[in-house]
Amino acid sequence: MGAPLNPSAARTRVRRLPELQVDDRAVLHGILDAGTIGHVSIVHDGQPYAIPVAYGRSGSSVLFHGSTGSRLFRLLAQGAPCCFTVTLLDGLVLARSAFETSMHYRSVMVLGSCTVVSEKLPALEAISEHIIPGRWASVRPPSRKELAATLVLALALDEVSVKVSAGPPSTSPEDTGFDPWVGVVPLRVERGDPIECEEEQS
Amino acid sequence: MGAPLNPSAARTRVRRLPELQVDDRAVLHGILDAGTIGHVSIVHDGQPYAIPVAYGRSGSSVLFHGSTGSRLFRLLAQGAPCCFTVTLLDGLVLARSAFETSMHYRSVMVLGSCTVVSEKLPALEAISEHIIPGRWASVRPPSRKELAATLVLALALDEVSVKVSAGPPSTSPEDTGFDPWVGVVPLRVERGDPIECEEEQS
Repeated sequence: MGAPLNPSAARTRVRRLPELQVDDRAVLHGILDAGTIGHVSIVHDGQPYAIPVAYGRSGSSVLFHGSTGSRLFRLLAQGAPCCFTVTLLDGLVLARSAFETSMHYRSVMVLGSCTVVSEKLPALEAISEHIIPGRWASVRPPSRKELAATLVLALALDEVSVKVSAGPPSTSPEDTGFDPWVGVVPLRVERGDPIECEEEQS
Repeated sequence: MGAPLNPSAARTRVRRLPELQVDDRAVLHGILDAGTIGHVSIVHDGQPYAIPVAYGRSGSSVLFHGSTGSRLFRLLAQGAPCCFTVTLLDGLVLARSAFETSMHYRSVMVLGSCTVVSEKLPALEAISEHIIPGRWASVRPPSRKELAATLVLALALDEVSVKVSAGPPSTSPEDTGFDPWVGVVPLRVERGDPIECEEEQS
């Protein structure tokens, strides 16, 4: 599955709860493949911005797209440093103490600079197939004008941290005398029954 | 519900699909109250980082907490510029074209600098009650040592953008001849049946 994730690298070493850091590219790919959106963050005039984006994965890069009219996407296209984060919430961990109450989650943080993807069609197909497998073959493909208005970016999975929290609730002798229900409430994203709707003419 | 959200402010004006911007503090509060986690982003040595955090809301501030040992939380406590983003995914919008395929979502982006909350207990209670209503009364409250290890931060809802996508799929005459299923697949976060587990002694 390629190179290890180098969990001791300065910028991606997990300092808080380091035992949750995972050095396994298959886990990284699994988290990215299970997510629907990520948050891409970028700095403009000293101010960070984090915006949600749909994405896909192609080998060891994540792919996402935006409008050529977007100020933040133009900065990304110029190679400005960015961070791409995907967080999957898997459960609420109800411990005996407030302090140990936590969540089960799987999260990925990718640091780096994007490159502009010139072969836009296969990249857009990868993003579409990531979110709605099998859909691409039946929709109208992007026109030349639509493609021209779309920036497609790739971010290599080179500088990455992966963190997985999946353990049981923690308790300590201090908790004696407190007796709430203890366990895990699973969380998952459900896709409901599809709803047909009237289309809007644009 | 307080002051309007000032959608024409330079840093929070929605440029891409501006018709989706909402200027309504009740909608802002509703999105924040419905979310479970946000992503806080911050710049260190020119590099943005976005990390997931649990949060709560108290009036017109969001509250979140982290470890005093966290480099990024210490920067936040020093008042470094940050961005707090909450994104709720409500559905996949399956349009007739790839270009118009999109998502239903509600998103909030708050810009500003955090202040350190000295009254930590009520803030931690607000965060706990936001995620697991009614839980706070039955768990062991934080000890003095646990409180000392916890940074609690507040970010005022002063500079905010709110964006809501909830419309039907768009189509245009270009789509003639393409006939995929068209509509919306609802997405929602489900809480499953609670699972009791053995606790881990810490």
